[in-house]
Amino acid sequence: MRIYADNAATTRMSDTAISVMLDCMKNIYGNPSNQFYSVGQAAKDKLEECRAQIAAVINAEPREIIFTSGGSEADNQAILSAAEYGRRRGKTHIISTAFEHHAVLHTLKKLEKSGFTITLLPVHENGVVDVCELVAAMRDDTCLVTVMTVNNEIGTIQPIAEIGAVCRERGVFFHTDAVQAVGHLPIDVKAMQTDMLSASAHKFHGPKGVGFLYVKKGAPVYPLIEGGAQERGKRAGTENIPGIAAMTAALQESVDNMDSVKARLTPIRDHIIKGLSGIPHSALNGDPVSRVCGNVNFSFEGIEGESLLILLDQKGICASSGSACTSGSLDPSHVLLAIGREHGVAHGSLRLSLGDDATMEEADHIVDSVKEIVAHLRSFSPVWRDLQTGKREYIL
Amino acid sequence: MRIYADNAATTRMSDTAISVMLDCMKNIYGNPSNQFYSVGQAAKDKLEECRAQIAAVINAEPREIIFTSGGSEADNQAILSAAEYGRRRGKTHIISTAFEHHAVLHTLKKLEKSGFTITLLPVHENGVVDVCELVAAMRDDTCLVTVMTVNNEIGTIQPIAEIGAVCRERGVFFHTDAVQAVGHLPIDVKAMQTDMLSASAHKFHGPKGVGFLYVKKGAPVYPLIEGGAQERGKRAGTENIPGIAAMTAALQESVDNMDSVKARLTPIRDHIIKGLSGIPHSALNGDPVSRVCGNVNFSFEGIEGESLLILLDQKGICASSGSACTSGSLDPSHVLLAIGREHGVAHGSLRLSLGDDATMEEADHIVDSVKEIVAHLRSFSPVWRDLQTGKREYIL
Repeated sequence: MRIYADNAATTRMSDTAISVMLDCMKNIYGNPSNQFYSVGQAAKDKLEECRAQIAAVINAEPREIIFTSGGSEADNQAILSAAEYGRRRGKTHIISTAFEHHAVLHTLKKLEKSGFTITLLPVHENGVVDVCELVAAMRDDTCLVTVMTVNNEIGTIQPIAEIGAVCRERGVFFHTDAVQAVGHLPIDVKAMQTDMLSASAHKFHGPKGVGFLYVKKGAPVYPLIEGGAQERGKRAGTENIPGIAAMTAALQESVDNMDSVKARLTPIRDHIIKGLSGIPHSALNGDPVSRVCGNVNFSFEGIEGESLLILLDQKGICASSGSACTSGSLDPSHVLLAIGREHGVAHGSLRLSLGDDATMEEADHIVDSVKEIVAHLRSFSPVWRDLQTGKREYIL
Repeated sequence: MRIYADNAATTRMSDTAISVMLDCMKNIYGNPSNQFYSVGQAAKDKLEECRAQIAAVINAEPREIIFTSGGSEADNQAILSAAEYGRRRGKTHIISTAFEHHAVLHTLKKLEKSGFTITLLPVHENGVVDVCELVAAMRDDTCLVTVMTVNNEIGTIQPIAEIGAVCRERGVFFHTDAVQAVGHLPIDVKAMQTDMLSASAHKFHGPKGVGFLYVKKGAPVYPLIEGGAQERGKRAGTENIPGIAAMTAALQESVDNMDSVKARLTPIRDHIIKGLSGIPHSALNGDPVSRVCGNVNFSFEGIEGESLLILLDQKGICASSGSACTSGSLDPSHVLLAIGREHGVAHGSLRLSLGDDATMEEADHIVDSVKEIVAHLRSFSPVWRDLQTGKREYIL
């Protein structure tokens, strides 16, 4: 049994997406910038068809969609654009949260070095932003609020529509990194009152290397990549038509299946949560209810997450500790620290992000495996020994 | 007969590249940042295998290759990195040429606005940079020279190794936009003495949306896209393994076939040049010898390039006027202006960039078609009438 439970890191492409990609690679190879011949026109038609379809899915206008190479690029471009616009008007304060993706946090760090002031809101034990705290943090010189729709590690869903309403009322631009949400939750940019939204195809069974940025008409957007006049001068580079078409197909498919996947996955997720809660000195990370249907994130006292992952792999289970982008580093997850986990406990964490086709049988295999491995690891863990002998105090 | 002769804009993917892409999309879907399970390890292995293979092709070290979303991103990152490095040391002068790709020119324009001084070297009638003029333009505060290896419109090959030698001697960083060269000419970064080199997969029958930047060990490189620690912290975003693997396969194939393609295409190209030279008041753009084997670029007096393209399409020939990135704009090609063509003549230009499988029979069809269409367009061109009645003077 091979269970791929790291879908928040990346998904396997759907058969539909692969088939669209293959068709485009073979047949729609032209450059959409040259519409004087039919091969280029066909590419341009496909590009605009995809733009319209994606816009419709998120309740936007086609001209509000900019295709990018992925979520990180979209995040960088959105934040730098709003910051530049703010700087020109003397507004250099940005509000975000402590548990954003590094594509957001590192961009903010860069801006901080160039004179911006950054306020990172706490996200509390449940991993959800408090809108009252956001309001309290707003200043006259706040030019941007950027809060992710769904956290990539603990799967918690943020009150985006409320944040959007507050920002709209104050005239502050609002960006949301929706990389973990698009294709998994209903997205309506008008209802969310967001000015900018980032998405990445490979998180919803589309191809890697492609994503999009929604920018509300009138909101500021400057090119991150300069060059040709593609994407109305906002993103240079020959358009990746096969990637864009496959992303569009994958998104449509994800949205069409969203309700049935949620109905199927939620009890499976809860079954795993219930099972893992039976492990002594363990704790679920993030709100148990306000989280996406595929996410389970647990901390176990007295073990190392990496050893857990290696042994889970031997049982055919692919999972993650911390986010994939920082796996391999020895730092504990900044997300788990942000929700108040201590360093040691954050190290002993496990993220399972289920695939759409996960089954109860697989859930049982996951629970049994984790239980067995945690017990095994604890059997030779000096930290666990200290906890049991009272030399160290249990936290969980 | 359908002849795709716009390969400098974009190429059709090779069957090999499509097949590698398909295989990876299906089978190597993991996230290489998570190597604690086999699916991620397989992705990481494939990534590093590709990096080593590409490095070997251009005589670089694997760690000197950064994968990007394409040539434009690579150009932007290279130039901004060298500029930032220079700025920190008080060096804010950059030398380039008047006929670079817009990915270079627009990035330089942005730097100019932020305080850099840009010198754009002339490229003369033959479309080749004069190294003596480069030397004369160098200043104590020159931090970067960026000159393309092959021009995208007129196909002329620049004296890169000589430029590299001059820059190395003076301790000035040298970047070359080799987007039109990689896969078409032998590339040896050590022999070229270049510090940075940009490439794009879709120009050599690889997929769109992927490219790479070579950065010599020790040369400055800062991330353009911030986020995860991918690419040794120099380029964030989940790695596009299928795209990278397909690019690698396409590059290897192009390099393996380079000599035979050149031997086959050169006489076909020269046959077209000879044929089109028979059209009165026409002229080849760019050096007749120092040009890539697939490029033909002509100007015809008294016609509009766009009408020529539309009528060529009706004869099954896909070609281009100006570069694809600016097609659709009414501005004449900046490249043709840079080699001294007047506005009106630049408008009446045609770029044919042959595919590897071009034949003499197709060459004849192209020549016959262009001859017929140019005569037809001139028959109702007011400019041509003025030229013939002496109201206006012939330039060509």
